[in-house]
This record gives sequence, structure tokens and C-alpha cells, in this order.
Amino acid sequence: MERHFHEQLQHLKNTLIEMADQVENAIANAIEALVDQDKDIAQNVIDMDDKINMLEIRIDNESLKLLATQQPMAVDLRFITSAMKINNDLERMGDHAVNIAQRAAMLCSQNHLKPLNNIPKMAEITQSMVKDSLSSFVTEDVKKARDVCERDDQVDQLDALLFRELLSEMMNDKENVPKAINYLLISKNLERIADLSTNISEEVIFIVKAKTIKHHLNASDLEDIRSRS
Amino acid sequence: MERHFHEQLQHLKNTLIEMADQVENAIANAIEALVDQDKDIAQNVIDMDDKINMLEIRIDNESLKLLATQQPMAVDLRFITSAMKINNDLERMGDHAVNIAQRAAMLCSQNHLKPLNNIPKMAEITQSMVKDSLSSFVTEDVKKARDVCERDDQVDQLDALLFRELLSEMMNDKENVPKAINYLLISKNLERIADLSTNISEEVIFIVKAKTIKHHLNASDLEDIRSRS
Repeated sequence: MERHFHEQLQHLKNTLIEMADQVENAIANAIEALVDQDKDIAQNVIDMDDKINMLEIRIDNESLKLLATQQPMAVDLRFITSAMKINNDLERMGDHAVNIAQRAAMLCSQNHLKPLNNIPKMAEITQSMVKDSLSSFVTEDVKKARDVCERDDQVDQLDALLFRELLSEMMNDKENVPKAINYLLISKNLERIADLSTNISEEVIFIVKAKTIKHHLNASDLEDIRSRS
Repeated sequence: MERHFHEQLQHLKNTLIEMADQVENAIANAIEALVDQDKDIAQNVIDMDDKINMLEIRIDNESLKLLATQQPMAVDLRFITSAMKINNDLERMGDHAVNIAQRAAMLCSQNHLKPLNNIPKMAEITQSMVKDSLSSFVTEDVKKARDVCERDDQVDQLDALLFRELLSEMMNDKENVPKAINYLLISKNLERIADLSTNISEEVIFIVKAKTIKHHLNASDLEDIRSRS
């Protein structure tokens, strides 16, 4: 039984990693569609979102089944409920990638504005955050989790830089306004994905700290750890 | 023991309702700060977010405690894991309200643009969605949950209308650009809160349907119901 439980837990981890891979690909492809002005790639990101949604349902069911049949205690319990939360976060990241792809499709027939250059940089950092936050979760790697949180500042800085550049493009020529707003909203989508990855990493830091002090779901301890993490 | 479990569940429901009340107030106050150009109210929304964050931790701990000590089956299990997801959603809504309050504070010293009129309308519908999605969850009221999903379309329509109005303000006078972008991002925050409320309501519809057909965590059934709900 014990061995079976750990196999099921491992399976849950693998499915989460698979879902994170899909989300990463969706982000990369949405940005490729934007930069290369490729409507087919954009449409593909939109179509593939169903796969991410189905993975969400599968992970939710696997987690519920584990809770119902194995009645895990303390640390494993926290791991499974965290997996359910992270699952939800990944699904939302997929939605943000779809949103970027939709805007990329709208922008296909228009010349780029220069500040676009910063978007692939933001996307690259954001993708690495998605990957590393999931990897820090399955391996309980606090150092990697902290690293993800630090990268969030870089994304915020690029978002702020892009905002200033786009504002000046809009002030220079009002014809740039519709395009610049689309870039701005794409940047906000990336920033949200980075935030969601940061949430996952904060959860990892919390889980591992709680494990280290061998807590047993003492509410005041948990509040204390969380408020300091 | 059984009675104790139901008291604990009721307590969890009450704490979720309390959190939803806080989020509703945060939205209402952030919009009041925007419309009345009141920096103190905006600051108050920002300060009060800690209370929402503490409620999130409390609900998380209560839920984990219930899972660990009561080992609930099927329907109750799903209810508690849903409560944990909804808790997460409410905390994010609080963050969106803070974001609106921060923008309201920035806009305090500047004259309003006319399209602002649509923001309080959007906020009013959004607040009612937060309230009703939570109420539909604790009372398992599918009709109310469906009603919330329908109101999401109204919010999306107002968001689209505001977008067009702001675009035209920006094209008319480039001096309007910075202000209009802040309005636009406030509108996006409200739209995200409405989306999160819709997610909660979809979860309610799913839980109640699953309960009605007396499923016992059969994965393919669940996928089937969810994909049709």
C-alpha cells in the first residue's frame, strides 16, 4: 500500500511537470506568433489550450483520489492540496498564453513598434520561472524556489520599462495607440504568469520550512512561518 | 464526532463568507477612492489587504485540519478542497482591489475623463458576483451560480465599451493617454475579479452536479460532467 501511494504521488508529480511543459510551450509559441506575425502559430496556441484544461481535470481527479483512498497525513496532505492549487495556477497561466496569442493574431498585419523587443526578453524569463517553480515543487528545492522569486523583480522591471517606452510611442504618434495598448496588455499577461510562478515558489518555501520544523498542522505555527517566508 | 465535523464545516463556510465580505468592501472602497479622488480611502484599502491575507492563511489551516483529522469522504472532501481553491481566488481578488486602489491614489490630483462613468457600473456588477458566487457555494445554489456566470458577460461588455471610449479619448488628445491607460488597467482588474467569481460559480455547478449523480470520484465521470458544465 505504502509503495503504491508513493507511485501515485510520483505520477501526480509527473503530470504536473507535463502540464508545466505545455504551459511553457504555449507561452513560447504565443510570443513566436507575435514576433514572426504568424497567425497559424497563434491559432495553434488557442487550440492547444483544451489539452491544458484536460490535464487540469486529470490532476484534480488524481489528487482527490489520493486524498480519498490514501488519507495521507501532515506533509503528504499538504503536498497534495498544494498540487491542487498549483494545478489551478498552471491552468490560469495557459489562459494568459491564449490571451497573448489572441492579441498576436490581431497584430499580424501591422508593422512592429520598437518596444516589442523587450517582450521576448520578458517571456524568456517568465518561461524559466514556470519551469523552475514546478521543478522546485517536485524536488522541494528551496534554493531554486527563492531564485524564481528573485527573477520576478526582473520581469516587473521589464514591464515598467516597456510601459514607459510604449507611453512615449503613444505620445509621439496617436496612430500607435491601438498597437501599443495591445503590447501593454501582453506585457501584463506575462507579468501575471510570473506572479503565479512566484506564488508557487512561495508555497514551496512554506512547505519545506513547515516540514523542517516537523509541524503537525498547528495553526499558529503555520501562520508564524508563512508570515515570515 | 459527526456533529463536531459539521460545526467545523459551518465555521469554514462562515470564514469564507467573512473573507468575501472583506473583498467586496475592498472593491467598493477602491472605486470610491477613484471616483471621489480620496487618497485616504485608497490607502485604507491597501492597508486592509493584510487582513484578507491573514484570513486566507486561517482558512487554509482550518481546511487542512479538517482533512487531517476528519478524513472526509467524497462530497465533503470535494467541498473542502474547493474551499481551499476559492480561498486562493478570494485572496487574488483582494490583490486586484489593492491594484485599483494604487491607481486611484495616483489619479487623485487629476480631472476625470468621461468614460470613468462606466467603472462604478462594472464594479457594482462585479461586487454582486463576488457576493453571490460565495453564497451559491455555501448554500449549493446552482441557479444563483448560473446567474453569476451570466453577469460575467455584462462585465465583459462594459470592459469592451470602456476600451473603445478610452481609445477615442487617447486618439483625440494625447495628453489623455496616461490617465486613460490607468482607467484601462482598472477595468482589467475588475474583469479579472469577475472571472474569478465565475470560476467559483462553475465549481459550484460542478460540485452539485457531481453530488446529484452520486459519483464516487470516478475520474472519467468527473471529466465528462466538467466538460459539459
